[in-house]
Amino acid sequence: MLLANDLLIRTQGAIHVIDERNCIDLLKSVGVGRIGITLDALPIILPVNYIYMNLGPDLDGCILFRTDPGTKLDAAFRHSVVAFEVDQIDYDKEEGWSVLVIGSAEVVDDSILEDRAMTSGLHPWSGGMKTHMVAITPKIVSGRRITH
Amino acid sequence: MLLANDLLIRTQGAIHVIDERNCIDLLKSVGVGRIGITLDALPIILPVNYIYMNLGPDLDGCILFRTDPGTKLDAAFRHSVVAFEVDQIDYDKEEGWSVLVIGSAEVVDDSILEDRAMTSGLHPWSGGMKTHMVAITPKIVSGRRITH
Repeated sequence: MLLANDLLIRTQGAIHVIDERNCIDLLKSVGVGRIGITLDALPIILPVNYIYMNLGPDLDGCILFRTDPGTKLDAAFRHSVVAFEVDQIDYDKEEGWSVLVIGSAEVVDDSILEDRAMTSGLHPWSGGMKTHMVAITPKIVSGRRITH
Repeated sequence: MLLANDLLIRTQGAIHVIDERNCIDLLKSVGVGRIGITLDALPIILPVNYIYMNLGPDLDGCILFRTDPGTKLDAAFRHSVVAFEVDQIDYDKEEGWSVLVIGSAEVVDDSILEDRAMTSGLHPWSGGMKTHMVAITPKIVSGRRITH
């Protein structure tokens, strides 16, 4: 009976795993995500507008965003391992999906890639200098979806 | 000239700081946020539906969400310091706001508070058991808004 009840509960509004390929497609479909880094031993989460771009025909993609020198860039300079999350929530239906990327962040020093990114529409929403571009190369990609 | 240019740029699409009181109001106005914890030395970000509730007439509020035993609960059990972020993004206007809370998480073992939270509409979107309620008590609250 416990098992039956457990199964019953789990089939109500289940959490579905999203495979990596679909996670990447979802990453490409969204323009704002949230980067999670540790700053002064404290975890912080900051939203950034980004693009997901393949670095070459035979290369994997990466998450690119622009930033001013600051916490995000400091993390990037240190080649930090960071979390990057995108999601889409339907409050009325109480449904949604989220994709979590864990990867290494580094400052991009590649003018060709920077030009490609800007041509693809990557620009700082906040104005400001945003003189640096940071790339997050995914190492672990996972996603989940809640549907009813 | 550098200073002039800098001021000019910073007044285009500025980032405005949101004071703590308004941050709390924004926390109350949203039902889904993202918790950032460190798991196995890796940063992760997970969305949760939550409510912000004052624990008493003279007490500060806390962020409450339900969870199954798992990463979020493990973190809670360890009285982790966690990050919690809520935001609202306008992709067309390239505007939005975000609020970041850094606080300590712990499992709530208070049936009265649990009843109040459930009465206030806190329930697991995903179904499942979600037998535990976690409280994040804010220690640091900050917010920023991008408007044009």
